[in-house]
Amino acid sequence: MYKKILNSKNKFLLIIGMMILSQSIIQAATPATWIWYPGDYEIWLGNKMNNRRTERGAFFPPFWKMDSHYIVVEFSKELDLDKPEEVEINVEGVFNIKLNGKLQFGMPDKFLLPAGKHQLNIKVWNQSTPPAIFVRGETLKSDDTWRVTYEDKEWIDESGKASDTSATTYYRVGSGGFNSINELPSEYRLAVTPQDVQNRDFVNSGELLDFGKETIGFLQFNNLKGSGDINIYYGESREEALDTEFCETLDKFYVDKDNFLDKSLGHTYKLTDTFTLENSKAFRYVYITKDEGVDYTDVSMLYEYRPEVHRGSFKSSDEELNKIWDVSAYTMHLTTREFFIDGIKRDRWVWSGDAYQSYLMNYYSFFDSQTVKNTIWLLGGKDPITSHINTIMDYTFYWFLSIYDYYLFSGDTHFISQIYPRMQSMMEYVLGRTNDNGMVEGLAGDWVFVDWADGYMDKQGELSFEQILFCRSLETMALCAELTNNNEDKAKYNKLAGDLREKLIPAFWDEDQHALVHNRLKNVQQPEITRYSNMFAVLFDYLTHNQKQSVKSSVLLNDSIMKITTPYMRFYELEALCELGEYDLVMSEMKDYWGGMIKEGATSFWEKYNPEDRGIEHLTMYGRPYGKSLCHSWGASPIYLLGKYYLGIKPVKAGYSEFSITPDLGGLEWMEGSVPTPNGDIKISMDQKSIKVKATEGEGYLYFSSKIAPKTTKGKIEKLEGNDYRLWIKENDEVVVSYKF
Amino acid sequence: MYKKILNSKNKFLLIIGMMILSQSIIQAATPATWIWYPGDYEIWLGNKMNNRRTERGAFFPPFWKMDSHYIVVEFSKELDLDKPEEVEINVEGVFNIKLNGKLQFGMPDKFLLPAGKHQLNIKVWNQSTPPAIFVRGETLKSDDTWRVTYEDKEWIDESGKASDTSATTYYRVGSGGFNSINELPSEYRLAVTPQDVQNRDFVNSGELLDFGKETIGFLQFNNLKGSGDINIYYGESREEALDTEFCETLDKFYVDKDNFLDKSLGHTYKLTDTFTLENSKAFRYVYITKDEGVDYTDVSMLYEYRPEVHRGSFKSSDEELNKIWDVSAYTMHLTTREFFIDGIKRDRWVWSGDAYQSYLMNYYSFFDSQTVKNTIWLLGGKDPITSHINTIMDYTFYWFLSIYDYYLFSGDTHFISQIYPRMQSMMEYVLGRTNDNGMVEGLAGDWVFVDWADGYMDKQGELSFEQILFCRSLETMALCAELTNNNEDKAKYNKLAGDLREKLIPAFWDEDQHALVHNRLKNVQQPEITRYSNMFAVLFDYLTHNQKQSVKSSVLLNDSIMKITTPYMRFYELEALCELGEYDLVMSEMKDYWGGMIKEGATSFWEKYNPEDRGIEHLTMYGRPYGKSLCHSWGASPIYLLGKYYLGIKPVKAGYSEFSITPDLGGLEWMEGSVPTPNGDIKISMDQKSIKVKATEGEGYLYFSSKIAPKTTKGKIEKLEGNDYRLWIKENDEVVVSYKF
Repeated sequence: MYKKILNSKNKFLLIIGMMILSQSIIQAATPATWIWYPGDYEIWLGNKMNNRRTERGAFFPPFWKMDSHYIVVEFSKELDLDKPEEVEINVEGVFNIKLNGKLQFGMPDKFLLPAGKHQLNIKVWNQSTPPAIFVRGETLKSDDTWRVTYEDKEWIDESGKASDTSATTYYRVGSGGFNSINELPSEYRLAVTPQDVQNRDFVNSGELLDFGKETIGFLQFNNLKGSGDINIYYGESREEALDTEFCETLDKFYVDKDNFLDKSLGHTYKLTDTFTLENSKAFRYVYITKDEGVDYTDVSMLYEYRPEVHRGSFKSSDEELNKIWDVSAYTMHLTTREFFIDGIKRDRWVWSGDAYQSYLMNYYSFFDSQTVKNTIWLLGGKDPITSHINTIMDYTFYWFLSIYDYYLFSGDTHFISQIYPRMQSMMEYVLGRTNDNGMVEGLAGDWVFVDWADGYMDKQGELSFEQILFCRSLETMALCAELTNNNEDKAKYNKLAGDLREKLIPAFWDEDQHALVHNRLKNVQQPEITRYSNMFAVLFDYLTHNQKQSVKSSVLLNDSIMKITTPYMRFYELEALCELGEYDLVMSEMKDYWGGMIKEGATSFWEKYNPEDRGIEHLTMYGRPYGKSLCHSWGASPIYLLGKYYLGIKPVKAGYSEFSITPDLGGLEWMEGSVPTPNGDIKISMDQKSIKVKATEGEGYLYFSSKIAPKTTKGKIEKLEGNDYRLWIKENDEVVVSYKF
Repeated sequence: MYKKILNSKNKFLLIIGMMILSQSIIQAATPATWIWYPGDYEIWLGNKMNNRRTERGAFFPPFWKMDSHYIVVEFSKELDLDKPEEVEINVEGVFNIKLNGKLQFGMPDKFLLPAGKHQLNIKVWNQSTPPAIFVRGETLKSDDTWRVTYEDKEWIDESGKASDTSATTYYRVGSGGFNSINELPSEYRLAVTPQDVQNRDFVNSGELLDFGKETIGFLQFNNLKGSGDINIYYGESREEALDTEFCETLDKFYVDKDNFLDKSLGHTYKLTDTFTLENSKAFRYVYITKDEGVDYTDVSMLYEYRPEVHRGSFKSSDEELNKIWDVSAYTMHLTTREFFIDGIKRDRWVWSGDAYQSYLMNYYSFFDSQTVKNTIWLLGGKDPITSHINTIMDYTFYWFLSIYDYYLFSGDTHFISQIYPRMQSMMEYVLGRTNDNGMVEGLAGDWVFVDWADGYMDKQGELSFEQILFCRSLETMALCAELTNNNEDKAKYNKLAGDLREKLIPAFWDEDQHALVHNRLKNVQQPEITRYSNMFAVLFDYLTHNQKQSVKSSVLLNDSIMKITTPYMRFYELEALCELGEYDLVMSEMKDYWGGMIKEGATSFWEKYNPEDRGIEHLTMYGRPYGKSLCHSWGASPIYLLGKYYLGIKPVKAGYSEFSITPDLGGLEWMEGSVPTPNGDIKISMDQKSIKVKATEGEGYLYFSSKIAPKTTKGKIEKLEGNDYRLWIKENDEVVVSYKF
């Protein structure tokens, strides 16, 4: 609560607060927290996440390099104490304490610091989990003012004189909101809550359970007893659960009176009255077969989730759209775990391109910055960089973009300064793989992904799509270099971005087809046009006004151009159409496409949806009958589109210190909703006669059109061109505008 | 045994063996072994070793970056089976099995492979210990023909088609002689054997135990009972053990009837009748104080050691010299642990400069190639290289030298090919830090060590010593590039070495002082002369004949040049004098210096010995009264000097396929000894009339001088210049030469 006050823009409250709060309460305001080497905990936790995937009882880890934490690190803090102070210490690992360079006995859980100026160092070794410490005294506490190094480069000469350690690079520590001394970061678990079966049915020789909707968690057996095999087949669809030969995930156990043997993991457990399985699985349906000698009374589950507050909201006159928003939000919640993952059934991996969309949706729903940072740290990995992120070229570029986005939405410059060295390494890797044109092409080991497409897509040579993402990445490097006051890098990356930007459109623009071609081979434009680069060129404002209009008609609204059949690329396609003002069209497309999935029975949104598919065709992918994920984070994009383009709210300056609101009903009778900001929210409701707005953080313009002279309850409306108006909204002012469109 | 036969040069036996042995017995000859990512197990084990250091109850890890194993790796093997074959599998970690790319259920301990050609992959995740596998069937076994990768870069397209994985870099696996399915590499422990107290004495309020000589192991208390504190102070000397305030290592415990609390680690144990402490310590003396409420009957210990065969031997007419050899061998054995460490009491760290000497001594004692390879892998670390090895510039260079040495002594080209990529990374790091002259200078974070010296030594600018080691390192890169058939690198490093070699002597040779100066500052020779670079220039044959003779008189035999007071640099000093033919002088120096330590009561050789010190002055170092290690591997160099220069045996071609023997009595009446070769040994005995030689592996020349015409029992003696002769010794021939000098 105090943190909120301190971060708020309300100077008056802040000053009052400062006057009445004692020093110790101020200290409590920014609590002691577990600290670690920046990124190390996130990478370690991410490995646990990414290694949870199984496929039909086989362990299925990712195919890219998995990094690890530094196993020995040294934390350091300069102290200046008025009086001696006893601190409590908790450490994950074996550790020592050095006071002014002198080693102290043992590994105490309490330590008395003398008054005066001191350097306190705590050095920790932990192979299995990231070295982490928690320190709390009356004034001293572990927080992000501490520094940390993985190589202290300290040596002593024969006379016992310590070396100059100025060559050691210390970094500001990482932390993640673990604010209690006994809340060990390595023991972090998602929350669970009981959830019941909606329907039990007997099919052939087994039992089919229906939990009513897509879910994820741990099955629980009540009163399991006897001896024999018990097999569990999970399905996102009824068909999948019943198809014991081809369902994507399963469990096989052997029950032996008191014991329960997991035949896949080889683990044995003692049976209990309510017995919970070790691994969480995603499903709506569960099909259970068993030997006669085994029995149980019933099966329930523990739903496993990351506690989130749905800070963003949307409601409108259109019930189908409201349902789309709800299913999107549920899809988003299911895939928001320790990290933003792709989908809950199959990969459960952290994919950069998928995560990039989750971040954006998150800013319009949970505004869970911790999970954004976790995911960015994990994806960034550690030196040496030996491949693209997830091996995918495009996914490396989305990673760069995501970092500046995070800054724009959160205003968190500290994170930028922490991640920037990894950005440098990553960009050095990319720059080491450019061709003579300074462009990127798929080299050995690079996966040029773009999208899952139903037709052929050429991945050879210079793809316009990849160059556009690369150019934006270079621009992002320059922006982040500026934020970290690195002028040398800023100049370097501005130059690189400028050079590429200059040749980008000339290289790919086809005057005859009025669009960017898909690729060049040996400097020669190929004739194929795809939507991808054209969409992104609109989004990044790389085209002239006329080029954009050409793209709209010759590509985006042209049915002869290969259709997009993933919600993933529909995200950008519809966003580009919004940027081009096609609100009504996008609204109808959204209702068709996402509404289409709901009509097919979706309780969460899918990895891929081709409206032309029929029946079980909707379940297949990757050559497998149930290969498709029916709960995929990139399916949730209506959250983002509705928040950013219909509620119309977005940050103009970092952390919403300035925002803009450009609401559009898109044909609806009315809508209302809320968009979270770092420490507040912006609420809007609108019908065909009035707009009501209130922001509890930041200030900015409300833009709208009106055929009559509009009125406001607060402030002064400015007239712009034609029927356009704007009104400056101040923090905490509730403003009602009367208008007519 | 079969292995020995297969490796031996005895073709006849081999052919007979091939004729009579069945296929399956041949398979057994090269056994199934645990395999891992090359270097990963060694680095992991090394972290355990390096983190065992304590200082007065405080955990004391190294101050350089500690690397870690890849936590997920995939092992791969191409199969071609005549018939189906069941294999046993054991894995350290969570794993999956893929047969021709298809995932198999679970983590079985037995697996049936179908007949025919297949690709078998086993992918393993293990955060805590290195992923490792053991596979054994009738024909298939895990061995060093398997390959491994940490990033398989395998992906599938939407249709389920697997990507081309040719971009994935597979390496040949590492292994280390763990040949039993249940002998988990992560559970490796040194051997232990009981050792008794030699003397119990009561001093003040405590008990002083004397184990009779320097030793290392785990104290054991018999019938420990009661309640109260018990404190243990360890000493390599009586003085140290009794000095409870300043002894270097100690243990503090609290006994509470059934429980035993380690106050340093915070661990609690259940007491047993014979209670063994958790951590091994080095000592000769142990001083124990305790509260009255605690009691025990007596204390013994478990001596902890790496089982080694003393394959090298030396005996002579000089009893003092024999004692020096024995104490050297004991010192060497104490410091040969999972790795070659510096000393057993204090650091217990793996230091590259110290290890470099241990390798050389090892070739003349245990010929324990496993420990050489372990140590080289550990010191090489992993990318990215962020500092010199152990932070010390010279220590990086010794590492390069050690690799070619290992090849020369062992003939193990496989190891060279495995370590070569790390050599490239390490040399890139060095080359990234050279100055405009292509020379190395200490930069921020570099420790320019050279030696512990009793006088001032300038570490600024270009040290001649460092350039000589650097030049030799570049030459070593070229040699190893050649061994790995990397012609591009060979040319590159030959060029770099040649350029540096050409400017080396002109840069540092002072015509007036007839020696290499210690350093240059801004291209200007400084006047100081030290022994270091002059010794190494002799050893590496970088000087003309005349320059060498100058160096001998103006430096090596010149008492006004700062004396060397560590056995570490005396190693090279005496070796250089041997290279210059001063056998009698070196023999007398050896007896004075090492004999001097024995006269001071040494039961193992010391880190530093200045004959001018008196009494407890011998114990001090690093500004601490007992800072000096009294059992330091670099103290054992007589093993090397006696084996290489007096027995006179060394390899001429890799792995002793050709050797040379140039024995020299150095004033002794007689001597006899043995030097190990990879799979055999070379025995020699010599007095003033005859030389007897037999080599069970390899062949080569015996060189000797004689004032009379010598005779031989086998072969034909060639006359060389003056009184010099040589005789070709064939494998397994016992040859006696009569001569007179």
